[in-house]
Amino acid sequence: MSVKQCGAATYAVSGVYIQSTASVVGPKEGHGPFRGQFDRVWEDEGSHAASFEKAEQQLLAEAYAIALQKGGLRWEDIQLVIGGDLLDQVITTNFVARSHGRPLAGIFAACATFTEGLGLGALLVGGADVGTVMVSAVSHHATAERQFRFPLELGYQRTPTSAWTATAAGAVVLSQAAAPLAVESVTFGRVVDLGGKDPNDMGSAMAPAAYDTIMQHLKDMGQELRDFDAIYTGDLGHFGLTMLKAYGERQGTPFGAELHDCGRELYDRDRQDTHNGGSGPGCSASVFSGPLTRKLMAGEWHRLLLVATGALYSPTTYQQGETIPCIAHAIQISRGRAHA
Amino acid sequence: MSVKQCGAATYAVSGVYIQSTASVVGPKEGHGPFRGQFDRVWEDEGSHAASFEKAEQQLLAEAYAIALQKGGLRWEDIQLVIGGDLLDQVITTNFVARSHGRPLAGIFAACATFTEGLGLGALLVGGADVGTVMVSAVSHHATAERQFRFPLELGYQRTPTSAWTATAAGAVVLSQAAAPLAVESVTFGRVVDLGGKDPNDMGSAMAPAAYDTIMQHLKDMGQELRDFDAIYTGDLGHFGLTMLKAYGERQGTPFGAELHDCGRELYDRDRQDTHNGGSGPGCSASVFSGPLTRKLMAGEWHRLLLVATGALYSPTTYQQGETIPCIAHAIQISRGRAHA
Repeated sequence: MSVKQCGAATYAVSGVYIQSTASVVGPKEGHGPFRGQFDRVWEDEGSHAASFEKAEQQLLAEAYAIALQKGGLRWEDIQLVIGGDLLDQVITTNFVARSHGRPLAGIFAACATFTEGLGLGALLVGGADVGTVMVSAVSHHATAERQFRFPLELGYQRTPTSAWTATAAGAVVLSQAAAPLAVESVTFGRVVDLGGKDPNDMGSAMAPAAYDTIMQHLKDMGQELRDFDAIYTGDLGHFGLTMLKAYGERQGTPFGAELHDCGRELYDRDRQDTHNGGSGPGCSASVFSGPLTRKLMAGEWHRLLLVATGALYSPTTYQQGETIPCIAHAIQISRGRAHA
Repeated sequence: MSVKQCGAATYAVSGVYIQSTASVVGPKEGHGPFRGQFDRVWEDEGSHAASFEKAEQQLLAEAYAIALQKGGLRWEDIQLVIGGDLLDQVITTNFVARSHGRPLAGIFAACATFTEGLGLGALLVGGADVGTVMVSAVSHHATAERQFRFPLELGYQRTPTSAWTATAAGAVVLSQAAAPLAVESVTFGRVVDLGGKDPNDMGSAMAPAAYDTIMQHLKDMGQELRDFDAIYTGDLGHFGLTMLKAYGERQGTPFGAELHDCGRELYDRDRQDTHNGGSGPGCSASVFSGPLTRKLMAGEWHRLLLVATGALYSPTTYQQGETIPCIAHAIQISRGRAHA
């Protein structure tokens, strides 16, 4: 195992593997274009739970349980849990930690939480003798709506650019034990804020941050876009991905067929009425832990760059007229021959 | 440099040093028992700013600037910023990151944020080739009151057990360059929840988490209480520290004169009307970055264990009748001969 800094913001990692992944999603997510590619699909948004907040906790707890089971692990095998969610004071991750009782490092990067966690986890496993790490991110449509926007009961009309916070959880176990999928490198993003102010158009606000991190990653690693079978941003959606492609054109790095977005592909825009597409920490977490790792495992891809994107605003900053700072963290995963 | 796991939750670190520290506090904090031991004391709570949220951002920005200046560093020398605060979506840390433009890993552990950040930072510098890390935590009395409790303008009466969120920021630069203060070890805490539900008595709720982490640290490192010149919990305050001492007595590990609490000592309880004492991520961050490192640098102490404590509830969980999960992360700092 080793970690080596490359360039300004990227770390090359060796000897860090994905031991297992788990994805648990709501009915809308489970019946979209990725149907059949998640570990578990709920029949509803969690109406059996006393509150949607409790439903979100259960979503995460199930993802943890499945990740452990698929990896043949018990909680005692996990040295550190690194996770976060969208709710104030990261309550979903923190409350679920009551039951697992493992050392916890809570993180927050809005919808970029998952790759921040994978990045920190990969560096700790690769260099800092933290044997096995559980990384997670989760979101729930109903809890996010009432915290950031309006209670669902209001039945308000959504703008065409608005995102649909996914009811979804993803969990990944990183360890030093050889496995088919390896973490190759990590780029920690910086905050980019070009002045976007509309919380109903986060895709456009986040596109510059995604662009910044992708370019930083390529530069630091001496790579080109064609070195990747797929580059997946987190939740730019239809509008944000269009903007990202426009940035690429304008800056002389035109993206090709390798560029995708988890949120854009999570729902069927026409059939599912989700407008710009999926968002929330659970969006990229579940899409990576389900559909994307399946593609890698099946040998369809050999190298993936996952670039989860986060809009770091709060209702308070929005009410105070502030702009929306954005961030993106990238993690490069490859399928190769496992080496012990 | 090296990092080596010891026991269940602790990591022994070598070759990681505190390059510089910075503390910026409000007038109440600056005129309490630690008067004269902070880098900068504000004349008021930030009435020059357009909002208290902006004042909190300025508090953090000043701490960063002082930490860089004292360390003879520029922002370009910082590979990664690890920081957090108490506000929803960690907006203070995220918004200040617009101006420094360095790679950012946002974290949240409520008032335990500072030692979570120091712990992650120490492991990344010690093992994962992240050369120089800026770690920070910040809070502001007025922003915390209106988010968690009531706007100050209401003039509501506080309970005897309630804590006073500190207007304070602390920042520490960790690097591989030899310096007098070294990070020796880190223990990541687990969530402990014994059923406390009163957000106006967080000290009592957090005491079991502090106890759990201190005992875990001693066990993993094969240490005893007397191996430390001082053990400082973060913000248990008067009630919480009394409870922690009672736990120690009952469990057969009676604490002695080495046990202190940052929040308890930040204010003069009688003169400053702060009831249980100081709290907030900025409490332990500023007390460590000011008064405690001064004691170490002056040779009065040789080994300190800082155990910041966090109550991981939110107004939503409180309104839903939930208990308060708590956590504590510990970092062991020593003053020794610098070795290159």
